[in-house]
Amino acid sequence: MLEIERDPKRMRAWVLAAQAAGRRVGFVPTMGSLHAGHASLVDCAAHECDDVAVSIFVNPTQFGPHEDFERYPRSLDADCRLMEAHGVGKVFAPEASVIYPPGDATRIVVCGPARRFEGEVRPGHFEGVATVVCRLFLSVPADVAYFGAKDWQQTLVVKRMVCDLGLPIDLVVCPTLREPDGLAMSSRNAYLSPEERARALALFESLTRAEQLWLAGDAASGIEQAMRDVLTARGITVDYAAVVDPLTLEPLSLKDPHGPKEKAVALVAGRVGATRLIDNRELPPR
Amino acid sequence: MLEIERDPKRMRAWVLAAQAAGRRVGFVPTMGSLHAGHASLVDCAAHECDDVAVSIFVNPTQFGPHEDFERYPRSLDADCRLMEAHGVGKVFAPEASVIYPPGDATRIVVCGPARRFEGEVRPGHFEGVATVVCRLFLSVPADVAYFGAKDWQQTLVVKRMVCDLGLPIDLVVCPTLREPDGLAMSSRNAYLSPEERARALALFESLTRAEQLWLAGDAASGIEQAMRDVLTARGITVDYAAVVDPLTLEPLSLKDPHGPKEKAVALVAGRVGATRLIDNRELPPR
Repeated sequence: MLEIERDPKRMRAWVLAAQAAGRRVGFVPTMGSLHAGHASLVDCAAHECDDVAVSIFVNPTQFGPHEDFERYPRSLDADCRLMEAHGVGKVFAPEASVIYPPGDATRIVVCGPARRFEGEVRPGHFEGVATVVCRLFLSVPADVAYFGAKDWQQTLVVKRMVCDLGLPIDLVVCPTLREPDGLAMSSRNAYLSPEERARALALFESLTRAEQLWLAGDAASGIEQAMRDVLTARGITVDYAAVVDPLTLEPLSLKDPHGPKEKAVALVAGRVGATRLIDNRELPPR
Repeated sequence: MLEIERDPKRMRAWVLAAQAAGRRVGFVPTMGSLHAGHASLVDCAAHECDDVAVSIFVNPTQFGPHEDFERYPRSLDADCRLMEAHGVGKVFAPEASVIYPPGDATRIVVCGPARRFEGEVRPGHFEGVATVVCRLFLSVPADVAYFGAKDWQQTLVVKRMVCDLGLPIDLVVCPTLREPDGLAMSSRNAYLSPEERARALALFESLTRAEQLWLAGDAASGIEQAMRDVLTARGITVDYAAVVDPLTLEPLSLKDPHGPKEKAVALVAGRVGATRLIDNRELPPR
């Protein structure tokens, strides 16, 4: 039977009691509007842990002033039914005034992996993400937390913060779940009209094109241009299309022909009508 | 028998084991060069807790580029002898490369109480303080941490961060310890020549003058000028001399004659020769 907990101290006590009883606790932080991608994170957590907690919190500080915080889809009842069906015991659904108490003046800033891409297009976004994730990890001091690879850069930012602050939690990154045609699952897909939904597939197609060219030996700059071509041909406004180092998100260094295989990630972000979508693919070492 | 621990994970395990055995753990974070002021924090912790841990870490990120990080006094052996004499069981003395791991890119920024005074004179100082205190609280997850009132603004910044992030630790602020003539104890007093040591007493005298004028009904601006006069008469370069709200450090609001008594704190910072000193006094409600 799933229970909803709104109080951070009681939530923390629940986790600590489980751990004191020798149980391993997994944690899946979400903004709700849950779909099969979230459910796959929960399934992964349930496979590795004795108890699974999910947080549902639409975090205001990671939205820019002109972004979709107000209209971001909220569906707590349906979310809880889905979570219960996947065996979740506890949903942590705090009020914003509890996560950000009166007079709140503290932010966590991560440079490095947060600098480019989403960090450039959405100033303050990762500051909001890092702050809320730290706050959530202190309320839900689980053994391990699960994140989706769809937010590739976010996983790097959270890893960096956890390492730097010494937060006592392990991180697991699970594969992106996709619709049958390849579109990455996202709560924001609900914004798309049927016509936009068809065009949105160009994000996936640009990543497939990137992988083909990568394996054919093309340079990052050529691949990036080809990705942009795929996107703009479908009327998508490109925020970025990049092939970069998968850990630092910096430009690829010149390949040493005698060195190890070259690794990269292709990142893409664009707007389909009023809806902003992102996706990525780890490219096979070449 | 006092033990020195350099590893955050083992330090954390020691605290958790004590707590699991039902023991209350107190924590005194320091930069070493310990004096009777630190010992009084330890005594307070020992009175309220079953075990006391002290950290000794000269935190590079809270020093500005032209400040005294390099020459800050370091005396680990003498520090440990003093701590052992006061019943401390564990000293946490990590290397900087452990507190700030390779690639470190995370900082905690506190606005509000960190904005003025030390925050203005020492840009980045409180960012360094907040970051290291959070990191230390995660390595030493004690029940309660003890800070000295001498760093009044620091206690407000740490309180703000602990509240905002939901760090599970209580804070206790202990009174400033003073030399017989009134000079606040500080590791930096060791920098003073005998002549500077005599002039440094002007900080204490400026606070005594502030209290007299406060109780006589003077306005903050007049008291501040009188404090500056006491300091400059002894050749002290004033960074600030202020009478402000004790919790927000904002200017006092106009007193409501029918309202509660007026509270304030007097803050002072100045340079005696090359040595920068700070002090403060909570003024009696009037």
